[in-house]
Amino acid sequence: MAKEAEIIAIGSELLTPQRVDTNSLAVTEQLNLLGVEVVSKHVIGDDRERLTAAIQMAIKRSHIVILIGGLGPTEDDVTRDAAAAALGHKLVLSLEQESVLINRFRQINRPMAKNNLRQAYLIEGAEALANPNGTAPGQFISTDRGALALLPGPPRELKPMVIHELMPRLRHVVPPQAIRVRSWRITGIGESDLDTLIAPVYMQHKNPVTTVLSSPGDLFVHLRAQGENDAEADSLLRKVGDPIADLLGDRAYTNDADEPLEIVVGQLLRKHHATICTAESVTGGMVAARLTEQAGSSDFFVAGFVTYNDEQKSSVLGISPELLHKHSAVSEAVARAMAEEARKRAGATYAISTTGYAGPSGGTEFDPVGTVYLGIAGPGETRVIRIRHGADRYRIRLLSTQAALDLARKTLLKS
Amino acid sequence: MAKEAEIIAIGSELLTPQRVDTNSLAVTEQLNLLGVEVVSKHVIGDDRERLTAAIQMAIKRSHIVILIGGLGPTEDDVTRDAAAAALGHKLVLSLEQESVLINRFRQINRPMAKNNLRQAYLIEGAEALANPNGTAPGQFISTDRGALALLPGPPRELKPMVIHELMPRLRHVVPPQAIRVRSWRITGIGESDLDTLIAPVYMQHKNPVTTVLSSPGDLFVHLRAQGENDAEADSLLRKVGDPIADLLGDRAYTNDADEPLEIVVGQLLRKHHATICTAESVTGGMVAARLTEQAGSSDFFVAGFVTYNDEQKSSVLGISPELLHKHSAVSEAVARAMAEEARKRAGATYAISTTGYAGPSGGTEFDPVGTVYLGIAGPGETRVIRIRHGADRYRIRLLSTQAALDLARKTLLKS
Repeated sequence: MAKEAEIIAIGSELLTPQRVDTNSLAVTEQLNLLGVEVVSKHVIGDDRERLTAAIQMAIKRSHIVILIGGLGPTEDDVTRDAAAAALGHKLVLSLEQESVLINRFRQINRPMAKNNLRQAYLIEGAEALANPNGTAPGQFISTDRGALALLPGPPRELKPMVIHELMPRLRHVVPPQAIRVRSWRITGIGESDLDTLIAPVYMQHKNPVTTVLSSPGDLFVHLRAQGENDAEADSLLRKVGDPIADLLGDRAYTNDADEPLEIVVGQLLRKHHATICTAESVTGGMVAARLTEQAGSSDFFVAGFVTYNDEQKSSVLGISPELLHKHSAVSEAVARAMAEEARKRAGATYAISTTGYAGPSGGTEFDPVGTVYLGIAGPGETRVIRIRHGADRYRIRLLSTQAALDLARKTLLKS
Repeated sequence: MAKEAEIIAIGSELLTPQRVDTNSLAVTEQLNLLGVEVVSKHVIGDDRERLTAAIQMAIKRSHIVILIGGLGPTEDDVTRDAAAAALGHKLVLSLEQESVLINRFRQINRPMAKNNLRQAYLIEGAEALANPNGTAPGQFISTDRGALALLPGPPRELKPMVIHELMPRLRHVVPPQAIRVRSWRITGIGESDLDTLIAPVYMQHKNPVTTVLSSPGDLFVHLRAQGENDAEADSLLRKVGDPIADLLGDRAYTNDADEPLEIVVGQLLRKHHATICTAESVTGGMVAARLTEQAGSSDFFVAGFVTYNDEQKSSVLGISPELLHKHSAVSEAVARAMAEEARKRAGATYAISTTGYAGPSGGTEFDPVGTVYLGIAGPGETRVIRIRHGADRYRIRLLSTQAALDLARKTLLKS
């Protein structure tokens, strides 16, 4: 039986129409790696009574309760008080934390306001969790069912504290579990087609747990296996993971959850000592922007052309008005010419082109809104593919950008 | 005393490390417009018992309780059952909803699975909320303290239902309040400088409620005044809003929360019957991508050049190697030449240029990483500004894109 956790994010700003809690994601990821399931999440404003009641219920219901935020020095920062009240403990001034605080203010060469001393108070019986990136220490205390942790809200303080301070302590609370994970990022297939493909495999197993997530043009499959020991977890993971990997084939572009498609394309270009340029119409610069997002992209990205109308396709890329007139700007022939001309002009190994109808207006009977031609010119042949999406302008541009990068990836894989 | 609401988002996928609930934001916005405060938000997995307990507590604590998600046709969709159990009511088949469902499947020309009939069950005493965009109707039912609503999870079903079905019913539950809002989107000033500027005004007042939000290069100030009647709410709003508007001056680029900077630039270009092109280095196509995001951008956007190294700046834009050698690519002189040459080549009224060090490597003693030169060439003089941000690569590119668009906006405002 997996241990259960609840996360409570504290802060009135998280109850406005403009803000969501994202801190809980990083904490959830780490808890899952311990085999702990997050069973509910809550957002409570800076309201002492309401928060006290929420903590009281959570520590009764769940083994592990994580509070995030509300550890600042002001009256609005009620988490310490509420947690102490929920546990029926006192807050006591920690002389050690007081001196940590005084030293920190000395280091950053700022006067310490009297308020800041509030941050040196710990719940009776709690351990302080060191915060090298801020003034508020975290706190960790045992409960009847397991443990309660208080963590700071700023992500750059929270994340290191979770890894270096919280996780080692939770390992003593949670019975050791062997956890193994494997994931894929996938493009070039829709969510329901993906599910038709792999559900027959993963539906047969509750362990590993399979998660399938989708964003436009980008799917993500994650397996998490839990065993008595590493060998068992590995074996469970392979039983589902290996057939899924086979089914996905080269639609899976990476196993790294944090590695977007443009990083993979960049790696392939580097590996081939090749360079790339872009000639974009419908994507308006998005392909170039993605390729240049990574540090060191000048190693492989040389130039981009955004030619948004026929005149510019002629004057900038030298595409003949006759060709444009004969085939129209959204055509196989023009996508091909854009890629080839851009490649020549920029002197790059490869050139990607995009031309299509993003809508809401435009399009023809044969090529309605959502039709996009993507080209790639390289040392060998030039290839053009036609894709069509029945989506809105925003998604059409996004999906076309992703498909253009994937066309480059597949071409590089074969070269 | 404002009415209080709680929102419960339902779905196990919202408890993974990859997903956050964003549906609650649109609901919060509408509730706030009624003068209702959201006092807590919760995410519960597809777990009938846990959800039942959460609903029971919420309807005891709060006037209005909104459930989002879990209204699908499968066994995992537990919201109907849990809400009925929490209220101690039965679920009853609605013959009217059954025929709505049958008609809908006929319209989309798909067979109706037996499971789907689950969606025609209503909690005894509940009103159905029409869902023209999906198969699951919403539900609305009175509670001892106010009302409980069940809403579908897909945003394109949820949002229209909130506006057209939920809000009219809540207006009968919530005593009428006059609410007036005013907001500004602001760029070209940091968050703490903005707060130093306007906090002395808004801190004196609890009504209107002031919210200040920041994302890289983009700040947002929102006022919400609540009065006995419209005149009172207006007057309260003006008392804080007018001095804030004066202090913000032309740093505020719009009053529309949903209008990003590129829309404002596009509007100004249309107004002046002017066109624009881009010559980007450090921003790698992001300025062009932003300008072409809106429908109809071909009215004013003509072309973009992404010249990522010295050779391309020479061969594509015709910038002399001598100039590049003398001043380096990141310089006032090259930003100026890029804008002027791009403008000439594309035949546009205006041209924006960007050149800088996004890092993590590069930079000089005088122009360290984070230094960016932005140019604008137009019918009058060419202007170049130098900005510097001590941020990471991602933020430097984002802030530079925003600053480049703002330079265009300010130039157009003056022309």
